[in-house]
Amino acid sequence: MGLKEIRTAMKVDLNKPAPEQKGLHNRWHPDISPCATIKNGEVVKIECLDWTGGQIKNNDSADDVRNVDLTRAHYLTGPFEVESAQPGDVLLVEIQDVQPFQEQPWGFTGVLDAKNGGGFLDELYPNAAKAIWDFEGIFCSSRHIPHVRFAGLIHPGILGCAPSAEILAEWNKRESELITAYADSGKVVAKPPEPANVHAGSAEGDIKAKVGREGARTIPGRPEHGGNCDIKNLSRGSKVYLPVHVPGANFSVGDLHFSQGDGEISFCGAIEMAGIITVKLSVIKSGMAEMGMKSPIFHPGPVEPQFGPGRYLTFEGFSVDHTGKQHYLDATVAYRETCLRVIEYLRRYGYDDYQIYLLLSCAPVQGHIAGLVDVPNACTTLGVPMDIFGFDIRPEVEAKKMDMGKCAFTSDRMG
Amino acid sequence: MGLKEIRTAMKVDLNKPAPEQKGLHNRWHPDISPCATIKNGEVVKIECLDWTGGQIKNNDSADDVRNVDLTRAHYLTGPFEVESAQPGDVLLVEIQDVQPFQEQPWGFTGVLDAKNGGGFLDELYPNAAKAIWDFEGIFCSSRHIPHVRFAGLIHPGILGCAPSAEILAEWNKRESELITAYADSGKVVAKPPEPANVHAGSAEGDIKAKVGREGARTIPGRPEHGGNCDIKNLSRGSKVYLPVHVPGANFSVGDLHFSQGDGEISFCGAIEMAGIITVKLSVIKSGMAEMGMKSPIFHPGPVEPQFGPGRYLTFEGFSVDHTGKQHYLDATVAYRETCLRVIEYLRRYGYDDYQIYLLLSCAPVQGHIAGLVDVPNACTTLGVPMDIFGFDIRPEVEAKKMDMGKCAFTSDRMG
Amino acid sequence: MGLKEIRTAMKVDLNKPAPEQKGLHNRWHPDISPCATIKNGEVVKIECLDWTGGQIKNNDSADDVRNVDLTRAHYLTGPFEVESAQPGDVLLVEIQDVQPFQEQPWGFTGVLDAKNGGGFLDELYPNAAKAIWDFEGIFCSSRHIPHVRFAGLIHPGILGCAPSAEILAEWNKRESELITAYADSGKVVAKPPEPANVHAGSAEGDIKAKVGREGARTIPGRPEHGGNCDIKNLSRGSKVYLPVHVPGANFSVGDLHFSQGDGEISFCGAIEMAGIITVKLSVIKSGMAEMGMKSPIFHPGPVEPQFGPGRYLTFEGFSVDHTGKQHYLDATVAYRETCLRVIEYLRRYGYDDYQIYLLLSCAPVQGHIAGLVDVPNACTTLGVPMDIFGFDIRPEVEAKKMDMGKCAFTSDRMG
Amino acid sequence: MGLKEIRTAMKVDLNKPAPEQKGLHNRWHPDISPCATIKNGEVVKIECLDWTGGQIKNNDSADDVRNVDLTRAHYLTGPFEVESAQPGDVLLVEIQDVQPFQEQPWGFTGVLDAKNGGGFLDELYPNAAKAIWDFEGIFCSSRHIPHVRFAGLIHPGILGCAPSAEILAEWNKRESELITAYADSGKVVAKPPEPANVHAGSAEGDIKAKVGREGARTIPGRPEHGGNCDIKNLSRGSKVYLPVHVPGANFSVGDLHFSQGDGEISFCGAIEMAGIITVKLSVIKSGMAEMGMKSPIFHPGPVEPQFGPGRYLTFEGFSVDHTGKQHYLDATVAYRETCLRVIEYLRRYGYDDYQIYLLLSCAPVQGHIAGLVDVPNACTTLGVPMDIFGFDIRPEVEAKKMDMGKCAFTSDRMG
Repeated sequence: MGLKEIRTAMKVDLNKPAPEQKGLHNRWHPDISPCATIKNGEVVKIECLDWTGGQIKNNDSADDVRNVDLTRAHYLTGPFEVESAQPGDVLLVEIQDVQPFQEQPWGFTGVLDAKNGGGFLDELYPNAAKAIWDFEGIFCSSRHIPHVRFAGLIHPGILGCAPSAEILAEWNKRESELITAYADSGKVVAKPPEPANVHAGSAEGDIKAKVGREGARTIPGRPEHGGNCDIKNLSRGSKVYLPVHVPGANFSVGDLHFSQGDGEISFCGAIEMAGIITVKLSVIKSGMAEMGMKSPIFHPGPVEPQFGPGRYLTFEGFSVDHTGKQHYLDATVAYRETCLRVIEYLRRYGYDDYQIYLLLSCAPVQGHIAGLVDVPNACTTLGVPMDIFGFDIRPEVEAKKMDMGKCAFTSDRMG
Repeated sequence: MGLKEIRTAMKVDLNKPAPEQKGLHNRWHPDISPCATIKNGEVVKIECLDWTGGQIKNNDSADDVRNVDLTRAHYLTGPFEVESAQPGDVLLVEIQDVQPFQEQPWGFTGVLDAKNGGGFLDELYPNAAKAIWDFEGIFCSSRHIPHVRFAGLIHPGILGCAPSAEILAEWNKRESELITAYADSGKVVAKPPEPANVHAGSAEGDIKAKVGREGARTIPGRPEHGGNCDIKNLSRGSKVYLPVHVPGANFSVGDLHFSQGDGEISFCGAIEMAGIITVKLSVIKSGMAEMGMKSPIFHPGPVEPQFGPGRYLTFEGFSVDHTGKQHYLDATVAYRETCLRVIEYLRRYGYDDYQIYLLLSCAPVQGHIAGLVDVPNACTTLGVPMDIFGFDIRPEVEAKKMDMGKCAFTSDRMG
Repeated sequence: MGLKEIRTAMKVDLNKPAPEQKGLHNRWHPDISPCATIKNGEVVKIECLDWTGGQIKNNDSADDVRNVDLTRAHYLTGPFEVESAQPGDVLLVEIQDVQPFQEQPWGFTGVLDAKNGGGFLDELYPNAAKAIWDFEGIFCSSRHIPHVRFAGLIHPGILGCAPSAEILAEWNKRESELITAYADSGKVVAKPPEPANVHAGSAEGDIKAKVGREGARTIPGRPEHGGNCDIKNLSRGSKVYLPVHVPGANFSVGDLHFSQGDGEISFCGAIEMAGIITVKLSVIKSGMAEMGMKSPIFHPGPVEPQFGPGRYLTFEGFSVDHTGKQHYLDATVAYRETCLRVIEYLRRYGYDDYQIYLLLSCAPVQGHIAGLVDVPNACTTLGVPMDIFGFDIRPEVEAKKMDMGKCAFTSDRMG
Repeated sequence: MGLKEIRTAMKVDLNKPAPEQKGLHNRWHPDISPCATIKNGEVVKIECLDWTGGQIKNNDSADDVRNVDLTRAHYLTGPFEVESAQPGDVLLVEIQDVQPFQEQPWGFTGVLDAKNGGGFLDELYPNAAKAIWDFEGIFCSSRHIPHVRFAGLIHPGILGCAPSAEILAEWNKRESELITAYADSGKVVAKPPEPANVHAGSAEGDIKAKVGREGARTIPGRPEHGGNCDIKNLSRGSKVYLPVHVPGANFSVGDLHFSQGDGEISFCGAIEMAGIITVKLSVIKSGMAEMGMKSPIFHPGPVEPQFGPGRYLTFEGFSVDHTGKQHYLDATVAYRETCLRVIEYLRRYGYDDYQIYLLLSCAPVQGHIAGLVDVPNACTTLGVPMDIFGFDIRPEVEAKKMDMGKCAFTSDRMG
């Protein structure tokens, strides 16, 4: 009579290497066997490691960030077989709660080294950096970025169902074409399947090898299933509608974020954490056809940190890059410029550019596409909630430089 | 004692051709003489034509949209000399109110023909189309898109100060380089200076000819001064901080919108209207250096139509285009896909794709940059406020086709 | 084709005495003849005087407030006959817009003299006082209360349909019983019908005399029809559902407010103004029975000044009065105490108590009933939006006394 | 380095009778010894029983509610000595989180029997009733009130510092005067000190007897310290400023609520639960004088379930009671009438009045004081968030009766 204590569908061990945990995997592949089964309509808790599987430590050096092994990245918990789910159905995921582990009340934001992962502004900021965030209930603050404190819009960075073999083949085809097209650029434009450090759950031997050869990396989101969308508003109370491509759905989740800004610009840019997500999973039969659905849809919950429209300071950027070159309706360039405008503004208070880069990545900033049709300029905006600062950042208040300390850098830069 | 009735700094005549009105202009150029002077700190009303200068009529044919003359586009009111403003200052524009004219309580949203202006989705939707919106106080509705009604987030599409000669030269240089680079593409990637139909305010003869040869088109926004940013949140109560590049600032404003969605995707995509804007102009001396400002900054007002975070249905899109091609972190492609996902969803209710294309352009939809760093996919989201519909669009409610009539098409398509 | 300019159903003349204007009245009575007819479903503009009919002037003396003639108070525009409305129907009033007159961009807030009207705190603050507010678009500020500026939540204080003869008789019966019960208290607990200065629209002679003898005063709201509810959230976009008691509904409206705080505590407590309201009137047949309606219901619009939950500083008050006496679950006493707590807090910045009393009456403060069941104490809260102040009022920021000038007092107090 | 796991300052045992737990108490008295010490600036978790100390069970009978022993009510956890706090200081309590116990994911709302506690509407609804609520992450729903689901605005009903001996004497004096004044009314207007079932923490013998004789009941809030304010917005992220009256502050907290409506009208009216509150306690020296503080002040957090202003259906009530009697500016009567208007409206959908009474008590309804000065009528409003219902309650949508089952009644009424 009445709700029982919620079942934990899969636990993780914070003190055991991720590759040794059977409930985890780090590739998308239909042949990875479910680690557990969840009933249609059941509410469960699922434990997750942080996206690096514990590679980053709570200290004041960014050496761990610089050296992070990306082949081991994005360990997901799952896959979970959902009873009665079939291809063409929609899996409704109700995110009822997300929490850090009681015993690990902290997370991290990193700037990856340009030679190992990079980030949205890596041309200008190529070095590794890190900020550790302490959690105080719903709030967080960082010794590496003083005078800032805000409530987390807590959410999972990644959730999705396994691709079918056909979809996986399509992914590999189109992404390898892109890699080929950019072969001469020297840029890492996509990551092909990578056998090194593949973790296929309980699979060993041939299947593990096959997953290594074919399995899609968990880094990007993809239209057919969602995956690593990094949507900051998928927070408590959200409903997410996911396409199902294999029998049982094979649902996985991971990469929990205490908070993130639109764009997650520094790549390791959210406040990354290990924790527990509570979800209710329900199957909507034939939902893909009925909803005309090709990509996930969601319905955010009613609970968000809200600052009021008048509490944002908003910056504008255009598709003219910082060398003065004009691009054609390029929202990506415009958003990069918008980020730079914020850095230029906030550095007046004494923050180092890397501190701001980290902050923009993880604070609940609003990144909007304003105009995309007035040739040749795309215009994007970035709204910074003023209430996250302990001082007044309005333009009409004189900016005073303060001692802002510094974020964690690599040991060679700190010396 | 007390505030007097607010002065109207410049009137327009809705019944007189725009080229005959001295208080208007349709190019950005430092040599266009001010049409009037405004005191530092003064509150004034400024009247504006719609962006086409009255080319579009309140009827049920999109012929006027198909035939719109873009060389005459974006008539701005101004420029206004602001007393004491000097290059390097910042002009603070407080938007106190925006209203349509009492005698013209309607506006329009158009899809331009792909061969004359086009729009964000013109590859798929190449034909001209139109919706007329009736204003009922703060609300609007359209006979061309039934079962939709919403409050306008009213704002100016364009405001900015005149460029200096140096900045203008820079604009022309970088935009012509872009045109050259795309010469073989057949695409209109930017619009060069155009002597035809130039309107330089009161200027005639040599100066008018010079403005025609050199003057920047008013279509795009540009980083150095803002211009046509089409930012839907620059509504009542907003403060905008604009860089000043010439003595007197030479401030202009126009292209009023009753409402707009993020991206203004159909190009003539807001609810375009003629009307009156009330602004307070103040000069912040040396503001550009003090604020570290390269592009405009703004602070939205506290008054916005608000739907609550739980009242949006949100769609996801990725940088894989509709032909299946993979693009590299391209937010523009991702946003186009996101728009298509909404069209696919809403057409289930009986709307024609063009009706949805128009609606997405002008309703207060939220277009966010979600993730921009997970190679190769950018992810964007588009939140549709569910409360603008007279029926329930939640996924869990069965979609029923209704008779939705149609929007205005060109006469050859209507027959 | 398309909406025409909206018809003004009734104009007022700001320069003509209210008693001479046939479209006004200042009593509720079924025998007051309609001044005009409105179609079912029609949108109209209705002009209104301020509630005193122009007795208060834009100057720096509160003599006019002290001497205000309350028998002439609350001139309403109407009544309007609404076609097809019958007793038992519900009149749906959609408030599409409320605006001050262009030529009179100011309003006033007054503290009435305790001997002529009084107010919620008149025991402690018995003197007349006044603040004049200048309107700047959606914002207002006052030379009498410096360092404060906010956006108006503009609304009508009074709207309702005429009572039937039976309902009017019931009003007079129960209110006279109350007057009798308090006869020895010396308090004015209700105002009986008053022939002096009655204004019954176009009626003269016998009917006017009857309205004088029987007509209900327009000062209080009443459950059967609404009337002077002074609900600050009945702003632009609201839908109000009003019971209909006489054929044609006989709808009236007036007492426009640029802004008001919950409770309107100083009685003349909103920012009172003359102006124009745009409404759409629709008849819902047999609505009272179908909605189980005894008193008006409303549905606020989506557009409000919004400060975010974290931008209020909130004060608590209990039903122990300032003499230390314990009252039984008395929310009225609790709210009075809550108001006093705010005055004590804000006077630290240099404001005079009367300035704060005026401010609390008209700024968009939130007055909530927190707890009403924990005998013997009712608890109420009052949330003050911190963003209306030009300085930081958070408790953790040291309070500094500033020169706050003063509000308008009566000439004998100013000397 | 970095935040450690948060210390639990006091645990409770859900399976042990409350009187046997030394960290609890159920009277306010300065002589109750602290159960633990908390450092100035420390963050701690504090576990709490539900307000009845576990008397109410998760079943379908309201017998436990009818028979609840109110002398054992409102067990608080504490008091806690806060280092360095002295009388005249202010204790800043930052509410960082509130959570139910993992193993008890449910709560209850009750209507007390009119003869044992009663409630705001007990004259009309004298019987005991109960609804059990299941928690699903941030949401709750009830088998006893179908078709309703909402996110909790979770908060503590009670928090405060111990009174000094002088303040306690004042409480007892004024409350006993009230009891005397109402002696002939037959009403329980306040609860005097009660030796039966007193629980004074670790105290025994003389001190316990003294606490029994003098200790203030924990039922009402009181202006000098707050106490049982039942303020629904004291949720996660709130800062509460509490007056300190004894050395060490002697802070206590309890009566956790998963959700509550303004007024908590059924008395046992929130969703009552046992759980854990995380707070940070800081001492502001001499804060009472510096802030001009007589009663607690608070600053809500930025995180609340938000429905948008346009998602409330709002009812009006006036100080004319349901017998037709006119009261003088009585907000308590007005709010009771407002509640009745909601019951009349919602019963059209098939809900029993008791179901609505329970729902109004615990759902996040907004109870506002609209007008308190227009003699003789006070006007209050009650806004019901429409999104908590699974069906559309807007007036324009026809109401259909559904099978709503019933709430739990006492066994004699269920038979």
